[in-house]
Amino acid sequence: MEQQIPYKIYLKETEMPTAWYNVRADMKNKPAPLLNPGTGKPMTAAELEGVFCEELVAQELNDTDRFIPIPEEIRSFYKMYRPSPLIRAYCLEEKLGTPAKIYYKFEGNNTSGSHKLNSAIAQAYYAKKQGLKGVTTETGAGQWGTALSMACSYFDLDCRVYMVKVSYEQKPFRREVMRTYGARVTPSPSDTTEIGRKILAEFPGTTGSLGCAISEAVEDAVTHEGYRYVLGSVLNQVLLHQSVIGLETKAALDQYGITPDIIIGCAGGGSNLGGLIAPFMGEKLRGEKEYRIIAVEPASCPSFTRGKFAYDFCDTGKVCPLAKMYTLGSGFIPAPNHAGGLRYHGMSSTLSQLYEDGYLEATTAVQTDVFQAAEQFARVEGILPAPESAHAIKVAIDEAMKCKETGEAKTIVFGLTGTGYFDMVAYERFHNGEMSDYIPTNEELEKSLAKLPQIN
Amino acid sequence: MEQQIPYKIYLKETEMPTAWYNVRADMKNKPAPLLNPGTGKPMTAAELEGVFCEELVAQELNDTDRFIPIPEEIRSFYKMYRPSPLIRAYCLEEKLGTPAKIYYKFEGNNTSGSHKLNSAIAQAYYAKKQGLKGVTTETGAGQWGTALSMACSYFDLDCRVYMVKVSYEQKPFRREVMRTYGARVTPSPSDTTEIGRKILAEFPGTTGSLGCAISEAVEDAVTHEGYRYVLGSVLNQVLLHQSVIGLETKAALDQYGITPDIIIGCAGGGSNLGGLIAPFMGEKLRGEKEYRIIAVEPASCPSFTRGKFAYDFCDTGKVCPLAKMYTLGSGFIPAPNHAGGLRYHGMSSTLSQLYEDGYLEATTAVQTDVFQAAEQFARVEGILPAPESAHAIKVAIDEAMKCKETGEAKTIVFGLTGTGYFDMVAYERFHNGEMSDYIPTNEELEKSLAKLPQIN
Repeated sequence: MEQQIPYKIYLKETEMPTAWYNVRADMKNKPAPLLNPGTGKPMTAAELEGVFCEELVAQELNDTDRFIPIPEEIRSFYKMYRPSPLIRAYCLEEKLGTPAKIYYKFEGNNTSGSHKLNSAIAQAYYAKKQGLKGVTTETGAGQWGTALSMACSYFDLDCRVYMVKVSYEQKPFRREVMRTYGARVTPSPSDTTEIGRKILAEFPGTTGSLGCAISEAVEDAVTHEGYRYVLGSVLNQVLLHQSVIGLETKAALDQYGITPDIIIGCAGGGSNLGGLIAPFMGEKLRGEKEYRIIAVEPASCPSFTRGKFAYDFCDTGKVCPLAKMYTLGSGFIPAPNHAGGLRYHGMSSTLSQLYEDGYLEATTAVQTDVFQAAEQFARVEGILPAPESAHAIKVAIDEAMKCKETGEAKTIVFGLTGTGYFDMVAYERFHNGEMSDYIPTNEELEKSLAKLPQIN
Repeated sequence: MEQQIPYKIYLKETEMPTAWYNVRADMKNKPAPLLNPGTGKPMTAAELEGVFCEELVAQELNDTDRFIPIPEEIRSFYKMYRPSPLIRAYCLEEKLGTPAKIYYKFEGNNTSGSHKLNSAIAQAYYAKKQGLKGVTTETGAGQWGTALSMACSYFDLDCRVYMVKVSYEQKPFRREVMRTYGARVTPSPSDTTEIGRKILAEFPGTTGSLGCAISEAVEDAVTHEGYRYVLGSVLNQVLLHQSVIGLETKAALDQYGITPDIIIGCAGGGSNLGGLIAPFMGEKLRGEKEYRIIAVEPASCPSFTRGKFAYDFCDTGKVCPLAKMYTLGSGFIPAPNHAGGLRYHGMSSTLSQLYEDGYLEATTAVQTDVFQAAEQFARVEGILPAPESAHAIKVAIDEAMKCKETGEAKTIVFGLTGTGYFDMVAYERFHNGEMSDYIPTNEELEKSLAKLPQIN
């Protein structure tokens, strides 16, 4: 054990980032613009401002400024739960008997239980600044909804959350946490929106999907004065806010002169991965450094590894703009046996472009392997991980075991996005041997992908 | 806002305590010894070693050594989740508009969700060192059981937990967390022990109590080869281990030249309070400093404020040694409507003696006030507190509001012992207005206290 590197590296508050890093500024091939589903033309700022807050639209469209200052109010809120620790996994390394050096950036030390709060507080701040009454959103596993509830409560904004029905049912206590922060939570699809009623009519008994819930939340926002829609992943603005994860990680590593060989993150819509890798990707894009960057997605929802890079709807109801991304088709709904988040049919446009251009790899993991890794990790590192985060753990362990075979002392950094306290139903199913590893068939994916809009 | 004091003060790992502080060494009136219930004479080390691990017995009886070194293995484990942050409640102060300066020591940043892990890992370590197969224990709200499960998993020890039935039912997911760490969890009273069967026969339909669960766990330990019983609170050894909380708090305050005026902790068996105040109490006992120290107990289980200072059984089944303490009688069972922990009929002998000698104050709070304070705190400070911890929050807010009236800028430090992620059933009842404030009648208490053993 190298005594000079502590178990947990905390930056000082004075060392925390004062600006977010905008990776798009360093991309030669910029992510493709959002398209108006009616005209097929790029969405203008004015059009986007019907759905999103003004300043967030500006951030969404800004692909030239490398750094965007973090407003003082957001930095103050960040100080309530940040900097998050960069943890050296000494106990895991010892258990695995690997020469690899494993670090993880732990984003679970806040009540939302994940990194989602980093963007929630930014989006709530801009909504408040614009004088809005409230915001609407969707949530899958519930982490984003909780984060947004906390952020809205802080700025005294109304918060309406559409929660994917399967999560709503599997995570009853999530609803109470959101309620503690004053949010209204509706299981989706619901009969409170036109699109919800349409989806229910077409797919009775559906357990829902992020794509459905997004449609409902957008409809709610655009049909109510003083409301806008906010989104916890996928968008450029979210990756921008989440860059605080990577900036802190890099600053902490730099203090000890550590350069990672491999950086690993789980990928659903891409918010954590995009944030974690941002400054490292910047160096890679500018040709300054070389890193292996690995996205891990669930085998049951494999956008990168089995999807198409094409324009698609961001939501099931097709009310949102079109985004060019790796997608399984906006009608794709992951098998209900899949636990936790990472259930989104698409992927961040920014990450999709980077993947297309060869700057990052992607791999999948089946869920029983993921829970096995989660339990192994919990027993030696003490932290009970969220199922989402455990995808990254699984691959980090795999890479560390490869090092054991080859004798290489690689430095592996992964994102531990959150805790699993509200995922005990899934853990229980795992303990009881009731969890299965459904992987969509080629036929299923072809059927879903056949319905992509004909724009490309 | 004083910019020089950060939101969170983290010690460096090199600044963490290397020895526990034993407050008994500085007490003129030592806590009374445990008595053998058969002979009425002080328990010898040999007698205690039938129930407890040898080194823990030595610590239990040691009232002369001021410092006891923390073994290297325990210090390594501590580094997985410690030092815990001392947080300046800037947001709460602003919301209250108080000139008071409020700090809280947050012990919830680990999977057990509370400070209990500090003693669990120590007790598991000594059990392992003694070559035992496993340990038994009881748990109320589930924090101690989770902590012990984590600690046992780390040292590969068998762990058997008797969980108070009302908590077992209200907190189904706690069981799964313990199971993740490999523990066996039994709702108490159960039919797996003689004493459990006896209690069930006498009080059919009882929701259980810590006193019952202790009896069952002790019986399990003494009737199985290679097992010992461990306890998460009340005992001197536990307060000793928990002194790490106070030592870190004091070291953090000292770095900024801060002297608290008031120190507040919730009190069930006394483990958190005893740990938090330890070094401050030491200064007070030695006449070096003056602090107001306030214990907050639930109005539904008011050992300090309405109990008697007398020898009593530590458990309902009367299989444990007798302790001199503030007690409501070992047959006292708090109303089932009482949420969360702090359900123990007695109180640490050490704290009882200090209270008797006037070194600390005690007060009570009713549970709807406690949950109101919890929600208020969560909304501004971000952390969702455990109901136990919220007792301290309630009184800290009260004291801060007194400062607002008088204009005094007092420094208040309180212990935020843990998080409420597994208490959402209680929060739900609070949100739904289904929570009530039962306070035991004088008749109830007299009836229970009339059964105190005639030893004093």
